[in-house]
Amino acid sequence: MSVTLARVAAVIESRKPEHGGDPATSYVAKLFAKGDDAILKKIGEEATELVMAAKDARVANDPSKVLYECADLWFHSMVLLAKFDLTPQQVLDELARREGVSGIDEKAARNE
Amino acid sequence: MSVTLARVAAVIESRKPEHGGDPATSYVAKLFAKGDDAILKKIGEEATELVMAAKDARVANDPSKVLYECADLWFHSMVLLAKFDLTPQQVLDELARREGVSGIDEKAARNE
Amino acid sequence: MSVTLARVAAVIESRKPEHGGDPATSYVAKLFAKGDDAILKKIGEEATELVMAAKDARVANDPSKVLYECADLWFHSMVLLAKFDLTPQQVLDELARREGVSGIDEKAARNE
Amino acid sequence: MSVTLARVAAVIESRKPEHGGDPATSYVAKLFAKGDDAILKKIGEEATELVMAAKDARVANDPSKVLYECADLWFHSMVLLAKFDLTPQQVLDELARREGVSGIDEKAARNE
Repeated sequence: MSVTLARVAAVIESRKPEHGGDPATSYVAKLFAKGDDAILKKIGEEATELVMAAKDARVANDPSKVLYECADLWFHSMVLLAKFDLTPQQVLDELARREGVSGIDEKAARNE
Repeated sequence: MSVTLARVAAVIESRKPEHGGDPATSYVAKLFAKGDDAILKKIGEEATELVMAAKDARVANDPSKVLYECADLWFHSMVLLAKFDLTPQQVLDELARREGVSGIDEKAARNE
Repeated sequence: MSVTLARVAAVIESRKPEHGGDPATSYVAKLFAKGDDAILKKIGEEATELVMAAKDARVANDPSKVLYECADLWFHSMVLLAKFDLTPQQVLDELARREGVSGIDEKAARNE
Repeated sequence: MSVTLARVAAVIESRKPEHGGDPATSYVAKLFAKGDDAILKKIGEEATELVMAAKDARVANDPSKVLYECADLWFHSMVLLAKFDLTPQQVLDELARREGVSGIDEKAARNE
């Protein structure tokens, strides 16, 4: 797996209550303490911000905001994965599986 | 970078019109042909499906749907990145930068 | 209640399977037949489209798309309400209740 | 128009900076002061919460949360309308127009 994804996932994992994450000092620990709904609201919010960033990027002719908001969305996706004891590696495995089985386009089309 | 992310990004890149992507046979080529708005609508839709999957996962006590929907969301994020000539490596770099600069939690908190 | 909201709600209600709604000829009947998830995906999609329309409206200096997409979002909200045997009048009652109890701003702030 | 929608719209209008709305004491005035993006983020957030509420409502067999979240979504839609100098009456007119022209189902289908 990507070293970065593995490191980010490890940091997120360390913020779980059972690993001593402290909601008073850690943003991720606070999300874990609040529970599923708080994380899901962030997913909705970050997806909206990515959409807004893409619109702004065309006007400003500067795609960097798309990058930042995509990073935010992936980061919060990883918090959600961790909440369900899933890992980014499993997401990559799923993406690889789709590509391997039948070509990623065709698989994506079937899931549309 | 993750070999999988690099391979998926390469497949997506190959579906661009300028690389011969054919909207008649490829789902991703069709998204590229339709333009930004079609991709952004998919981001909103896949984020909603991820939220629904997380709710369903708790009822069914089966997190696998969270994995599939997260893969869908990341996949369509990568189509959006490609539309802006950005790469998943740049997203990983941004995630690494945040972790390196000041600890990922603190950075995420500031961006909240 | 608004005559329009009452009429739209009545049309939606008439599309339910138990009232003879036919998925082959009616878009709303098809949504009812597909179930909650199909309607919820439309809520996510229409909210995303409203966000996109607002961004476009500033660039084009033409707010009409905001109006159309807001109508789409309210319409699909009403399909969701009907799926739960709720009415737009109950939503209006809730809005009135918040205003009456403590001023709408204060109530909204508490719900934030 | 619905008396409630008209009253809520009037309260929202009164919170605009040019009508003396004070961000220090009014939630809506604060949204207006923050600008389009803050309101659009709320649209994405409230739509996500409505989706979550519908999922929860099936588990709890209690649709009341759907009602509250729909009221929140409509309320924030009205803040967005006001930001673009649009009114809920214009949304109702658009809904009536669709019904009048060709039957609301058919129109919705074409807009899908």
